[in-house]
Amino acid sequence: MTTIQKVWIPTESGYQSVDVRIEGDKIAAIAPELEPSGHVVDGKDKLLLPGFVNAHTHSPELWQRGSIGPLPLELWLGDLHDFAPLDPEAVYLSAVGTAVETLLSGGTTVVDHLVLSPGQEAESVEAAVRGYRDAGIRAFVGPLIQDMDLQAGLPSGGLVREVQPFPLSTQATLELMADLVERFHRPEDGIYIMVAPTGMQLCTDELFAGCIELSDCHQLRRHTHMLETKAQKMLAYEKYGCSAVQHLKEIGFLNAHTSLAHCVWLDDADIAMLAETRSTVVHNPLSNLRLGSGIAPVLKYRAAGVNVTFGCDGSASNDAQDVLEAIKIGSTLHNTTTFEYRQWITPRQAIEMASLGGATGLGMAEELGTLTVGKKADLVMYDLTSLSLLPKTDPIGLLVLGRPTNVVDYAWVNGKSVVAEGKVATVDVEQLRETLWERSQWISDRPTPTRTASESHYRKVMGLQP
Amino acid sequence: MTTIQKVWIPTESGYQSVDVRIEGDKIAAIAPELEPSGHVVDGKDKLLLPGFVNAHTHSPELWQRGSIGPLPLELWLGDLHDFAPLDPEAVYLSAVGTAVETLLSGGTTVVDHLVLSPGQEAESVEAAVRGYRDAGIRAFVGPLIQDMDLQAGLPSGGLVREVQPFPLSTQATLELMADLVERFHRPEDGIYIMVAPTGMQLCTDELFAGCIELSDCHQLRRHTHMLETKAQKMLAYEKYGCSAVQHLKEIGFLNAHTSLAHCVWLDDADIAMLAETRSTVVHNPLSNLRLGSGIAPVLKYRAAGVNVTFGCDGSASNDAQDVLEAIKIGSTLHNTTTFEYRQWITPRQAIEMASLGGATGLGMAEELGTLTVGKKADLVMYDLTSLSLLPKTDPIGLLVLGRPTNVVDYAWVNGKSVVAEGKVATVDVEQLRETLWERSQWISDRPTPTRTASESHYRKVMGLQP
Repeated sequence: MTTIQKVWIPTESGYQSVDVRIEGDKIAAIAPELEPSGHVVDGKDKLLLPGFVNAHTHSPELWQRGSIGPLPLELWLGDLHDFAPLDPEAVYLSAVGTAVETLLSGGTTVVDHLVLSPGQEAESVEAAVRGYRDAGIRAFVGPLIQDMDLQAGLPSGGLVREVQPFPLSTQATLELMADLVERFHRPEDGIYIMVAPTGMQLCTDELFAGCIELSDCHQLRRHTHMLETKAQKMLAYEKYGCSAVQHLKEIGFLNAHTSLAHCVWLDDADIAMLAETRSTVVHNPLSNLRLGSGIAPVLKYRAAGVNVTFGCDGSASNDAQDVLEAIKIGSTLHNTTTFEYRQWITPRQAIEMASLGGATGLGMAEELGTLTVGKKADLVMYDLTSLSLLPKTDPIGLLVLGRPTNVVDYAWVNGKSVVAEGKVATVDVEQLRETLWERSQWISDRPTPTRTASESHYRKVMGLQP
Repeated sequence: MTTIQKVWIPTESGYQSVDVRIEGDKIAAIAPELEPSGHVVDGKDKLLLPGFVNAHTHSPELWQRGSIGPLPLELWLGDLHDFAPLDPEAVYLSAVGTAVETLLSGGTTVVDHLVLSPGQEAESVEAAVRGYRDAGIRAFVGPLIQDMDLQAGLPSGGLVREVQPFPLSTQATLELMADLVERFHRPEDGIYIMVAPTGMQLCTDELFAGCIELSDCHQLRRHTHMLETKAQKMLAYEKYGCSAVQHLKEIGFLNAHTSLAHCVWLDDADIAMLAETRSTVVHNPLSNLRLGSGIAPVLKYRAAGVNVTFGCDGSASNDAQDVLEAIKIGSTLHNTTTFEYRQWITPRQAIEMASLGGATGLGMAEELGTLTVGKKADLVMYDLTSLSLLPKTDPIGLLVLGRPTNVVDYAWVNGKSVVAEGKVATVDVEQLRETLWERSQWISDRPTPTRTASESHYRKVMGLQP
């Protein structure tokens, strides 16, 4: 049991000081004054918020952050692909690193669209799950599955191109998924396996159908990439003769437990379909800028009643896991898309998108995302005396619009303290730092055969000069 | 004298380990190995770069950061204006705070377009200069002068509106400027007064002319806001019948020592005029997003040969002074403006824009902005073993595209150590933090009479529904 004393929480338009009781994995009480019992935490000059959801990332990309130049997704993917596959210990370490950065920037849940090392698919999942358990973060792990070769992800543009068959068959992939669900899906421990086909650009309808079946059978959340780039929009029309959203709706993939990463290239009809199916948009602003994917029409989503939340995306396309950074840019970026400032996202709305919006996208709105008695205690307490949150003005304004550093004082996940007195309590961060140092080496001039092989085709179909 | 041993510096396309000697205010030697002499600093696993220029800010806004909601510039200015004027001690503290955040994010020079407290104009400049001297940062202080009322900054749209005379006359303002130059312009100490009329929206040609004369007489740098918003573009055509750039060129304000903050709403002819006059664009990406000003056509500037550098802008429109954040967003944002990724800004180009580009905009390219023997020793050394810069991949890629925190190990300005072993050496940061805490109070529901008075007119001229 924990009692947080005299902590600020937001009210409708201001703040009030309260005591908060955590019992087991739940918020047991919130009141102006509570009998101190259990572990007593001083909340004076602190702000308590529900934890954020880092709603889309690929943890293994941590090993490549900072290393890929300015390239659009389709060519960037080639470079990513040419990096040596990770051994399970490396997957473990990047999961832990992702958890640490997420926790220290206000996140208590991570959605890991997990890159699988070929031939070690189950080991990759085991390692990431172990990393998240050790870090104590709530984790939704969606193994990144596909059943088509990378080259199939480019529109043909009417040109001939070589596409190899994918090494793992659709059936084998679905069997792998069923096995992973059985072995690792443990909601009671805060570890959830999701069905997460890479995206319509690399997956057959058969793979989607198998994922839908598995999802229905085990109440799994669904996740996929959706129209991140203009090339994908072109490809969808080539493949289906309609938009990708319409096709995924028709095959039954979209529902209230489906979250869709990116959603940059949707039109008004697509947006209406997201609202109708109650799908969630995961906005990854930093990745969308870095890869030049475009600016997702987030204000249109909000106007249409579509739930929107934020992700950092993988660390090779951002290149960090700072949730507060994603919230800042993800909420201010859209001010450039309309002069009607009354539609602009306020800091309080941004906070709600990152917490309740994230929970909603995972079908967890009843259990997470607000400071409500009876909900799970996934909480973050910020130190308002930190230099980066001074002078005192408005706590949430400072947190969202500033550049907070070293501000997370405490964090709890499922009622357990995972950050205490500004330090991650579950992970030896100094040891992690040393291990990351030892296991990596400065990269100069990485070979880029996959990008090189597809660049000429990409430039042609995108209408770029040779 | 200082000898930095075995530090990484960038080469054409990679890195090399060198020793660096600082003598007096200069870089005295760079070689694979130097005789250690003077203060010896271990550069192992560190990266040395020229210091960045935080090329546009308004330090007193620190007191309002986080407090103004999502509003376009013209209405946001109303809220800013309604905040109680600062006393000189507050101006001193926000200058020190701005210097500290700039130094800890790689900046060694700040350009402060300094808001003056009415009736205490000279005291404001004295306080800010004192703050920058105490912090040891190189500072260009451009007193924010105007000779027209705030309401004159809105386009009339053919409507009648009330514009009061400005309390200080043009002549009095110019006399003030001459006095400030005499009292505070000390280039040898790293303190420079600039002529910095607020912008064409609030300044008469007479004020510009007086500034030009003063600038010519004392070799002062010139700085102003330029076409930050669409409303300003409209206003320029109302006032001059031509673009603001053309007008400022015609009256002789634009030259190689002129830097122009924002430059969001320029057309191709304007861009050609910037190139012709060798003016510098200061890009403030975070402020432009937050205020919904738009996305400056930075790739067009670069293609036209216009020098571009980065600023944080004041802390009420960003709301932080993290130069690395401005560099990250300012370099990746433009990837969304063209599919031709070969024009996208690389991390190395971004670093050069922030250092040499900043120096060029201040007419200091011969003295600052590169690691060159004989140039002034304005240097920053980053700790590559920091968790936020791991795993090891590419140091500059990690620094620009990641979210580096607590990474500045040492910084020197004019050869003097201002950050040492990760701590600001010149300022008692803990004392600063306490003072900022004590001198501020949480703001709820600030009164907004100025915004309220102009909102209806603003909405009309911008074509927004009432």
